[in-house]
Amino acid sequence: MKKICSLLLIIAVSFQLKAETGYDLWLRYQPLQNQTVLTTYRQQISGITLGGNAETMKIIGEELQHGLSAMLQKKITVTNKSSSTASLIAATGISPLLAGTEVKKLLAQTGEEGFIILSQNINGQKRIIISGNTDKAVLYGAFHFLRLIQTEQAIHNLQVVSVPKVKLRMLNHWDNMNRTVERGYAGFSLWNWHTLPGYIDPRYIDYARANASIGINGTVLTNVNANATILTKNYLEKVKALADAFRPYGIKVYLTARFSAPIEIGGLKTADPLDEKVRQWWKDKVKEIYQYVPDFGGFVVKANSEGQPGPQDYKRSHTDGANMLAEAVAPFNGIIMWRAFVYSAEKNVDRHKQAYDEFVPLDGSFNKNVMVQVKNGAIDFMPREPFHPLFGAMPKTPLMMEFQVTQEYLGQATNLVYLGPLFKECLEADTYTNGKGSTVAKVLDGSFNKAQTLTGITGVANIGNDINWCGHPFAQANWYAMGRLAWDHSLSAERIAEEWLRMTYSNHPAFLQTASKLMMESRETYVQYSNPIGLHHIMGTGHHYGPAPWVSNLNRPDWNPVYYHKADSIGIGFNRTATGSNALEQYHPEARKIWENMNTCEEKNLLWFHHVPWTFKMKSGRNLWDELCFNYYTGAEKVKTMQQAWAGLEPYVDKQRHDQVRMLLNVQYDEAIWWRNACLLYFQTFSKKPIPANYPQPDKTLEYYKSLRFPLAPGN
Amino acid sequence: MKKICSLLLIIAVSFQLKAETGYDLWLRYQPLQNQTVLTTYRQQISGITLGGNAETMKIIGEELQHGLSAMLQKKITVTNKSSSTASLIAATGISPLLAGTEVKKLLAQTGEEGFIILSQNINGQKRIIISGNTDKAVLYGAFHFLRLIQTEQAIHNLQVVSVPKVKLRMLNHWDNMNRTVERGYAGFSLWNWHTLPGYIDPRYIDYARANASIGINGTVLTNVNANATILTKNYLEKVKALADAFRPYGIKVYLTARFSAPIEIGGLKTADPLDEKVRQWWKDKVKEIYQYVPDFGGFVVKANSEGQPGPQDYKRSHTDGANMLAEAVAPFNGIIMWRAFVYSAEKNVDRHKQAYDEFVPLDGSFNKNVMVQVKNGAIDFMPREPFHPLFGAMPKTPLMMEFQVTQEYLGQATNLVYLGPLFKECLEADTYTNGKGSTVAKVLDGSFNKAQTLTGITGVANIGNDINWCGHPFAQANWYAMGRLAWDHSLSAERIAEEWLRMTYSNHPAFLQTASKLMMESRETYVQYSNPIGLHHIMGTGHHYGPAPWVSNLNRPDWNPVYYHKADSIGIGFNRTATGSNALEQYHPEARKIWENMNTCEEKNLLWFHHVPWTFKMKSGRNLWDELCFNYYTGAEKVKTMQQAWAGLEPYVDKQRHDQVRMLLNVQYDEAIWWRNACLLYFQTFSKKPIPANYPQPDKTLEYYKSLRFPLAPGN
Repeated sequence: MKKICSLLLIIAVSFQLKAETGYDLWLRYQPLQNQTVLTTYRQQISGITLGGNAETMKIIGEELQHGLSAMLQKKITVTNKSSSTASLIAATGISPLLAGTEVKKLLAQTGEEGFIILSQNINGQKRIIISGNTDKAVLYGAFHFLRLIQTEQAIHNLQVVSVPKVKLRMLNHWDNMNRTVERGYAGFSLWNWHTLPGYIDPRYIDYARANASIGINGTVLTNVNANATILTKNYLEKVKALADAFRPYGIKVYLTARFSAPIEIGGLKTADPLDEKVRQWWKDKVKEIYQYVPDFGGFVVKANSEGQPGPQDYKRSHTDGANMLAEAVAPFNGIIMWRAFVYSAEKNVDRHKQAYDEFVPLDGSFNKNVMVQVKNGAIDFMPREPFHPLFGAMPKTPLMMEFQVTQEYLGQATNLVYLGPLFKECLEADTYTNGKGSTVAKVLDGSFNKAQTLTGITGVANIGNDINWCGHPFAQANWYAMGRLAWDHSLSAERIAEEWLRMTYSNHPAFLQTASKLMMESRETYVQYSNPIGLHHIMGTGHHYGPAPWVSNLNRPDWNPVYYHKADSIGIGFNRTATGSNALEQYHPEARKIWENMNTCEEKNLLWFHHVPWTFKMKSGRNLWDELCFNYYTGAEKVKTMQQAWAGLEPYVDKQRHDQVRMLLNVQYDEAIWWRNACLLYFQTFSKKPIPANYPQPDKTLEYYKSLRFPLAPGN
Repeated sequence: MKKICSLLLIIAVSFQLKAETGYDLWLRYQPLQNQTVLTTYRQQISGITLGGNAETMKIIGEELQHGLSAMLQKKITVTNKSSSTASLIAATGISPLLAGTEVKKLLAQTGEEGFIILSQNINGQKRIIISGNTDKAVLYGAFHFLRLIQTEQAIHNLQVVSVPKVKLRMLNHWDNMNRTVERGYAGFSLWNWHTLPGYIDPRYIDYARANASIGINGTVLTNVNANATILTKNYLEKVKALADAFRPYGIKVYLTARFSAPIEIGGLKTADPLDEKVRQWWKDKVKEIYQYVPDFGGFVVKANSEGQPGPQDYKRSHTDGANMLAEAVAPFNGIIMWRAFVYSAEKNVDRHKQAYDEFVPLDGSFNKNVMVQVKNGAIDFMPREPFHPLFGAMPKTPLMMEFQVTQEYLGQATNLVYLGPLFKECLEADTYTNGKGSTVAKVLDGSFNKAQTLTGITGVANIGNDINWCGHPFAQANWYAMGRLAWDHSLSAERIAEEWLRMTYSNHPAFLQTASKLMMESRETYVQYSNPIGLHHIMGTGHHYGPAPWVSNLNRPDWNPVYYHKADSIGIGFNRTATGSNALEQYHPEARKIWENMNTCEEKNLLWFHHVPWTFKMKSGRNLWDELCFNYYTGAEKVKTMQQAWAGLEPYVDKQRHDQVRMLLNVQYDEAIWWRNACLLYFQTFSKKPIPANYPQPDKTLEYYKSLRFPLAPGN
């Protein structure tokens, strides 16, 4: 026995060092390494008593049992018996298991989805109670408890009460029905429509588990550039199969509605939202959908934007379109998320202003079950972007935040860029609408409108069928951060990064210190070597991969990088003050105050709002051109620092994942140099100034960079 | 210690029962369950002595160490020290480690790739020697040894000498550069061209390992419907990265050559193979390729087939085209595989005859480094197809077998169909060219031509980026079988199935008995419910998914199912005798003898060669129509038997993979009913006979089946 035992020890260790594919995400449940913590947990956790055996409750039992057994290297039993003295109780508040505890009182505050985790003495025995008002809430609590163990937190006196700050916490999949993904960098769509409904890929379940573990409760399966085929009977059967798979994990399914579907699959001659036949068609279609999916969430709609059909095709308003659909889904408690990302090539107006111009006049005109879904900024998911002026400007309309988790403009699948700081920068931005402290987060969570019943944050998913789900191993952190912030926007980006690192890699302090810094600085580094000082939208055409600030020949003026940087012999940047496009007037006077003046504007947003002379003196004492050079060179060099930092983390990471990130950081460095050289060589044709001699000069010409073509770049 | 030990035991067990994704293929290296066998192995295997430290030798050491440690639950050490007394020695024949052994003598027979595994007493100690003349040969031996352990074979007296029967053992990937896969049912292409060359996906390495483990030594990365872009500098750098990754595993990289590349990427006005500029362009291009990939294997070419460009566009012959390319690659020892899959819509000749008509006159005209690559049958990878008449008919030309591993016509990713019996049926078919026993396998392996230096078998890959590589868990067996048969075509399909089952699932006798039967009967079952009695090419248009025998409106006559089944009021089937297309004349008189006569023809090929009256009396005593009904109904019912058999195997398979196969068998049953009903209802419009009353009558109409559309079916 002793001999076998030592052999097993070796195997246990070798399992742990084994290459990981990343498939397990942050739910790896590896044996805990800290022996002190492990010993304590082993004493504290004996078994689980479950208050029920509905499907979600069974999932809770399995997840706790599997996770705790693996992490504690101890067999954890699960029982439904009320006589059990297992140390862990997972049950809803009405369970007899919790009679006589403080649970009921606490649950008065937690609503439908919030949970509590409570250390209690019951009959003289120390117990940990995970509870909520619904099974789904208990599921969230169970994942939270597992997270405490995964991150090695103390559990001897738990008093956790956690309630999500917004109600709709969602993913938008820009997945086409042929499984290509618009702006997807992690392979192809998870949804294998061909083998649905008969075949439920185990990934669908793991997808639901991962989402439930961070509180995501809705998923939009299809691209906003929608295909009406998804609304046909054949495909609704497939949608139903996914909805059935996701339901026990508390995840509702939503679809995108192609506005012209009544014509394309309904055989009507029009999709006019005021046409009675059209209205009836949608009502019938929605009724049909609910027959397949009784808790169907509703529709996301991209209308009259970038060539998509919409109510304006019939001289109707966004309100007409949204309310027609809202009426159809209302009897079933469905909602409509109507996207505000609209701009028109025909209008000679700064694109920055168009969504505000179109939507603010409509405030108050939407039905109660309509949300307007607004991107974090007014242009398009740029590496850095001031908050969208619509936030705070539509007090009578619930606004849904649309973040982009997929890194379309932020290094796609090859750059390590942690988006936590970007999300937080926007959530904490002050709209001043109701005075100082009127953050975007408060606009979203209904703080300013007690009557507001719909609140939400959504993220454009970065998930594909790559084994590790997100392509870049660190891109998983952006999915994680989106979910965690949707649950609680007050969490810091640092805290989320550390949680994710602990669960995904290691609890070792030396690892955490370095890796956390690496993540926290990564987005600023990306901005610095790609779009510093407020530059934006200067990437390659179509695929948006790499720099192409010189492009000026695209059909619509505002598709061209030159429209955005406006470099000339005098200077560079987009004048959005009163002497320019005056986009700034859309912000509250307090919010725009520091931006209006070139001398007070934060330098990170300077070229976003101002056309600034090359000779303009920056806070560093350098002129603008030299500051631009400084940023591009410093940013690229920081990638070297990232490479070095990662190299030092080799002892803490399995070889496979360490190699992956190492290779990708090499690619990232090459791309950083490419951004730096291409942009500086191009802008130099305007500034006519030299790149300071202390920097290594570009070894390729501007013509070389202009000649690069990427016909097969993904995600287009 | 004792307490920890028992905990570890539990963990060890729970690891083993853990859900498996299928990613590990047949290289799972799970702890052995048979305690007797395990104890013996533990005594027999102490450690490994490696004869060298080149890259391939290191891989051998790692694979043996990892595999044996995991299976034997024992730390296996690896050393290079000649003084080691480790029980296992892996070294090439020239290694001093093997001085004084019988190895040298045996290696005289094994060539460059063959290996030996030999039990020997060295200095009174029992040792196992794995050897060959090259590191690559030792790698094959190492994987063979691991297979012995995985399948629990006795190793106390090993005398294995194994030499591959053909030299080129390859996969053809029909992967497009945008990562779609023509006839791919397991997701999208493994090759992520965008992140190459900087990022070497760990899958590339596991792909190489898996191939090396079954002896595959070449891979054609790109689709035969070729894109010239792969030959541009930017992409050759990416090809080089893959070639570098595969090289240590003994795998050479090949590409497909688009015949018009000199025009498309070379800027020439013609691709005429007799034009000097064109010839020079190819020579220069090939030279460039070899600068990137010094051991580049060569090109596969699909020319003048299904719209692809080729020499006939310039009134030149296949020989002119092939020899031009052969000349370009010859200085670098490259080869050309010129595909014989050609047919012309313009010719009013049974498509069955066209490849023979075009190629037999060219026998002897090709350069020495050209192979003609021939599909197993004359039509196109049908569920059952007589062997291609070209086999045996081009004695002066090396023929390469092209099997289809991806199940284009055999249930795609949703049907469990083991192709071992199909491959064997063709390999063992008798061409009679050099008298009785002149099997297709002997034509391939050079048995009839001692001067033949090129021999090969290739398979159109069924590999995609699905986690389990092949979509259907059992589709992995077809990849495995293709490789094993390419190494040794004399292996039986049963033996290969059992090997694969043992490695992929379990060595339990009860499991093996049932699962092996399930596999062995699966292809015949598929034939029975889809294309019985020699029917062929009656599947859906374009995507080839499901039945559509009624289709008659496609551009080319021979794209239409009605061209192949020729059902009419008299009967059904394609008359290929002297009174019909006379395709039979292309076979050796002995080979075609039994086929020529409706009364002697094996019933499995009856409708392939004959137009048979509905009233024709079959061996069963039933008339043809009733026999057709019998087959369709029996085939569909057999899927039920498969479902039941699989259900009984639940104790032996982890839940995840068991569920996957269970769900897919449900889908398969539905598809079998669909084939049965659609085909019988349609053919009934000609036979005017009832479906025998003892069968459940179709519950849907022919019009219903005709109305089904699959616009998004994969693989098209």
